[in-house]
Amino acid sequence: MALAKKRVTLKEVAERAGVSRSAVSRTFTPGASVSDETRRRVENAAEALGYSPSVLASGLSTGRTKLIGLVSNNFRNPFYLEVFDAFTRTLQSRDLRPLLVNLSEQFDADDALAMLRQYSVDGVVVASSTLPPAFSSAFSDAGLPVVHAFARHSEIPDVNTVGIDNVACGRMAADLLMARGYGQVGFLGGPQTAASTADRQAGFLDALPAGVRAKCPVYHANDYSFQAGYAAMADIIARGVSRRAWFCGDDAISIGAKAALEASAKSVPQDVGIVGVNGMDIAAWQGIELTTFRQPLQAIVDAVVERLAQLMEDPDDAPRAIRFEPQLIDGATLRQRPKNG
Amino acid sequence: MALAKKRVTLKEVAERAGVSRSAVSRTFTPGASVSDETRRRVENAAEALGYSPSVLASGLSTGRTKLIGLVSNNFRNPFYLEVFDAFTRTLQSRDLRPLLVNLSEQFDADDALAMLRQYSVDGVVVASSTLPPAFSSAFSDAGLPVVHAFARHSEIPDVNTVGIDNVACGRMAADLLMARGYGQVGFLGGPQTAASTADRQAGFLDALPAGVRAKCPVYHANDYSFQAGYAAMADIIARGVSRRAWFCGDDAISIGAKAALEASAKSVPQDVGIVGVNGMDIAAWQGIELTTFRQPLQAIVDAVVERLAQLMEDPDDAPRAIRFEPQLIDGATLRQRPKNG
Repeated sequence: MALAKKRVTLKEVAERAGVSRSAVSRTFTPGASVSDETRRRVENAAEALGYSPSVLASGLSTGRTKLIGLVSNNFRNPFYLEVFDAFTRTLQSRDLRPLLVNLSEQFDADDALAMLRQYSVDGVVVASSTLPPAFSSAFSDAGLPVVHAFARHSEIPDVNTVGIDNVACGRMAADLLMARGYGQVGFLGGPQTAASTADRQAGFLDALPAGVRAKCPVYHANDYSFQAGYAAMADIIARGVSRRAWFCGDDAISIGAKAALEASAKSVPQDVGIVGVNGMDIAAWQGIELTTFRQPLQAIVDAVVERLAQLMEDPDDAPRAIRFEPQLIDGATLRQRPKNG
Repeated sequence: MALAKKRVTLKEVAERAGVSRSAVSRTFTPGASVSDETRRRVENAAEALGYSPSVLASGLSTGRTKLIGLVSNNFRNPFYLEVFDAFTRTLQSRDLRPLLVNLSEQFDADDALAMLRQYSVDGVVVASSTLPPAFSSAFSDAGLPVVHAFARHSEIPDVNTVGIDNVACGRMAADLLMARGYGQVGFLGGPQTAASTADRQAGFLDALPAGVRAKCPVYHANDYSFQAGYAAMADIIARGVSRRAWFCGDDAISIGAKAALEASAKSVPQDVGIVGVNGMDIAAWQGIELTTFRQPLQAIVDAVVERLAQLMEDPDDAPRAIRFEPQLIDGATLRQRPKNG
């Protein structure tokens, strides 16, 4: 690689040019005042040393750093590896750079916001179905372009959102189970506090026939994860509750629930059917082959990044909600034909 | 949240203070020259508007941005979600920020290096067992502190590395299979070009008794992924090759190979044993319960970040190789007791 042996610093350029560091900084700041003589000496020194001012330096005056905060709290759900892969590739293809923020532990919204402002990010992507709309609003209230992926869908959004309508997805799950002739169904959602869980539950219960709804048990896993799904279904089995099919919070919960059923000698779908949400890679693994509602990930990511680019041009553009339809992946965890049960 | 409605710009501070933008910049640049009167006006304006100079601005003079390039090409291996989780949390706990670089597609080392220099990163973490040492050397040759996690182990390293010794890990796998009485064994590695694959293969074959080694078939999956492991084992089965136990390249390949065996009516471990490497969360899922050599992830990540911090203080410190021992997780995919076969 034909590169200088060491990163050249502003200080070295200043020393070689025989000027102050501030003079070097001003030379590379559009609009800053600097004498012709100083500019000439700095430019000569910079060229001789192979120094180029950083994006960050020019960002101070242009207001553009091309840094995008990519904020998530879902580092335990395998679906999010695909989410991070798609976002980093898509941002990179537009010459934007993701500053990854992990909200799993120490960060709250205030800390994340303060930090992202310190780094002068051009915008923020919130990638989470469990963070509330108020979380994203905090960024837009502070004047930062923000798009919330996998957010709660609203026709009159407070903040820019992209994703599926989880209420509609819940309805689709109810319709699917009815079409396959399942009469005894249950709901095993994600964390009760998550908007995505509440919405899927509301749509599901709403679309069930009244008689089925009246007998539909509702449980929640405490996390969108395999272990939480396994624990919740093991608990359901231990309570003696049994249903012929379950609409589960997401793929990770579905796969955990399936493992718990199989561990207690129930086979899927012969004894119990399962349908999930997300369509993550693992859901398609041979031996799992989950029936699930796929979120069209790349389309969602493309729409998020496109919308963010628009907001960077026009920060005052009114919030929009961009909605995609979930798509049924007809796997091996629901029976195909209606029969009794 | 008690925050200004909009991000305050340097320009707004300059306007309110009635000074040039350059004067504002110099006020917040340690060591830059600015008159007492200008400083007072700028500081008053900044306080009134709620402006704080960015880390990036001060980084231009201090040479510190606290940005760390986190470079990987493993966005298809679920283990890496845990890797990214651990790195982001550990970097954040030290007030460092990961700029995530996805090398899966368009980026090569030159592009990544040029980009990370543009962003004046303080250091680089390369997280990959498939990128060659020369890749990381390019960063250190250019004067950027770099630590390569999951790199090839060498007693005399060219670049700072942290990870397990994959040759030793291969030997441990051979010893384990011999101790369990497996006489017919095979190697199903990751991509042939990956240093980790070559090292695990070398150690494994070397530690097998000569008679066993002579009959040990060697295959490679074309990726560290479930699908590649499934395809490779399906191909092995189609060729009529069968062995009583396989040392597989990593957990993802192992789980894929197990699914392929089960799809052809072989049960694991009754008919065929499998041992993997990594100890990722999914390997412990009920129904999978892989026997595998765990990489002590948090210890590796802590050591990487600690070493990087040292290099940021002393960039000329000689490269070190920090080595951890893999730990056997005795799951359900190898039989416990020796018997014939």
